[in-house]
Amino acid sequence: MLKMKEINFFHGLGLCWVLCLTACQKNASSSENKPAMQQRPAYAIAIHGGAGTLSRANMTPEKEAAYRSALDSALIIGETVLKNGGTSLDAVEKTITYLEDCPLFNAGRGAVFTHDGRNELDASIMDGTTQKAGAVGGVSIVKNPIQLARAVMDKSPHVFLTGRGAEQFAIEHQIDTIDPKWFFTPERWQTLQEMLAEEKKAGPTGELDPALRDYKFGTVGCVALDAQGHLAAGTSTGGMTNKRWNRLGDSPVIGAGTYASDDACAVSCTGHGEFFIRYAVAHDVWALMSYKNLSLEEAANFVVRKKLVEKGGEGGLIAVDKAGNIALPFNSEGMYRGYAKPGERKVMIY
Amino acid sequence: MLKMKEINFFHGLGLCWVLCLTACQKNASSSENKPAMQQRPAYAIAIHGGAGTLSRANMTPEKEAAYRSALDSALIIGETVLKNGGTSLDAVEKTITYLEDCPLFNAGRGAVFTHDGRNELDASIMDGTTQKAGAVGGVSIVKNPIQLARAVMDKSPHVFLTGRGAEQFAIEHQIDTIDPKWFFTPERWQTLQEMLAEEKKAGPTGELDPALRDYKFGTVGCVALDAQGHLAAGTSTGGMTNKRWNRLGDSPVIGAGTYASDDACAVSCTGHGEFFIRYAVAHDVWALMSYKNLSLEEAANFVVRKKLVEKGGEGGLIAVDKAGNIALPFNSEGMYRGYAKPGERKVMIY
Repeated sequence: MLKMKEINFFHGLGLCWVLCLTACQKNASSSENKPAMQQRPAYAIAIHGGAGTLSRANMTPEKEAAYRSALDSALIIGETVLKNGGTSLDAVEKTITYLEDCPLFNAGRGAVFTHDGRNELDASIMDGTTQKAGAVGGVSIVKNPIQLARAVMDKSPHVFLTGRGAEQFAIEHQIDTIDPKWFFTPERWQTLQEMLAEEKKAGPTGELDPALRDYKFGTVGCVALDAQGHLAAGTSTGGMTNKRWNRLGDSPVIGAGTYASDDACAVSCTGHGEFFIRYAVAHDVWALMSYKNLSLEEAANFVVRKKLVEKGGEGGLIAVDKAGNIALPFNSEGMYRGYAKPGERKVMIY
Repeated sequence: MLKMKEINFFHGLGLCWVLCLTACQKNASSSENKPAMQQRPAYAIAIHGGAGTLSRANMTPEKEAAYRSALDSALIIGETVLKNGGTSLDAVEKTITYLEDCPLFNAGRGAVFTHDGRNELDASIMDGTTQKAGAVGGVSIVKNPIQLARAVMDKSPHVFLTGRGAEQFAIEHQIDTIDPKWFFTPERWQTLQEMLAEEKKAGPTGELDPALRDYKFGTVGCVALDAQGHLAAGTSTGGMTNKRWNRLGDSPVIGAGTYASDDACAVSCTGHGEFFIRYAVAHDVWALMSYKNLSLEEAANFVVRKKLVEKGGEGGLIAVDKAGNIALPFNSEGMYRGYAKPGERKVMIY
């Protein structure tokens, strides 16, 4: 809870809103945000597989089961690393690698198509201990962009590589490259065709038919806390269907889609990337905790469910703090997500 | 000055440091940071032309006069826009356009060369009123990347375009494109040759000989406050000499190199871009003002002269707040910089 002396810092309304929200027991997402723990758990991990309309109408029981199963498998992969004393960084990389290889999600295999019928992949990763980071934007021949982001962090003096140059770096550093056909899935191709037909009718506004928005905010991400108290975050995506002009969203932008610092939290976002860049969402959660003493839940909720809602930025985020608390707020209809701690593992969609 | 009730938020040492700094009259840069003004000036504008070693030994009186004259001309261009009731956004764009066209600075004409002997330009701009933003990374045929960033902001649904795609967007939107030879300057070419020779001796570590670091942090930037109280920020660069793999620095990264919000401040950075990305420097200044009630001077100094110094991130920033206060802190030997308000205009290097 906030202390009285902080009120002056909170500009009135914001505080009221957080207090309201904390008190609101009806809110489904709020119940996922566990109260602060007395003792740090041995590990904590959370994942997302994108947020958006995710309308129940478009979902069959089989499809839902497949998503739930994939999210569960991803969590088990991360948990296994952490249970065996592995680092949060390795857990994040391995978990996202699995999600990239799974064609259900818009990242790696299963990535959406650009206007020109290509797959251009973005990813980033950040180490909360050193605050080193690696990011790649617009790569088309790299099987697991999260592994390339990790290599950029570990093996280059740089943070952010793009396009052909990033691919060249991948080749020089023995990161798996692959025939771009690997990324092809008929569903994503069909979505592009529908969107192109839609656009032909409506003109090239760049705006999508709401019915097609199931695919709009596809992203995968993972945040983790390991036994040593180290935090890490990572995010990977194929971006927006029908994107043009080598557009980058927030996923490869450190501070927007991904942020981690052992002194507070690790954050991975999914949503309408332009808004997440403009409000530096991942760093904003960190700043609210660090500079305003908000709890993880308060900070994450404030950004996602107040600020972004007011600004019109749809999406969500996953976050874990240094005490092992987890927050999974979103302001869209659904967000593929899950978390695990010793003795509990849960996946959710709506 | 800080109020007592804020002390708990300041984690002890940080506060002491800021108080020390404020009291320190010997510090050259501190004297540039004017005390809070009673009344907002009709306008305020600040510029930078990069930070780095800028050793006096390498500087001739003629060269210094040329830099000072160019900085002064740039300020006059921005001031003219603002005096005539123009927007801060137009002032930023026009001022940076001038700096891009001036071969003295590492942006536009005068950009440094990549490892492959190309010029890859990055830029971003942000409107403090709407918090819309535009950014471009790795363009090679766009005469004024800041104008392209502005067009991305104004005429696309996106924030961040890169490489060939960004160039295609420029062509589609009648932004001036140009033969890449335009960007060639013999001095920058010579620097690349020296660096390649150096690298051949030392191996491709990506690290530069300190003697060549005059060029390392070349960037130009502008922040402005207009008569309507609107803030804007922009940044443009050719990046690092000898950069590879389509590396992006902080200049095109909203939150890192550029940030603006009418509720607090506008910021443009220059320095070792990787550090500015990892600490989301421009957004961090905004966050310290917004969440911790620091003044512009306190926030900017804390980030540049404490946090970045501790982390090893060399560079500086320029910032203006909604009251017209200006801060120009740097932790390197020098920073080409200047500011203007009604009745005063000043340019500085060391």
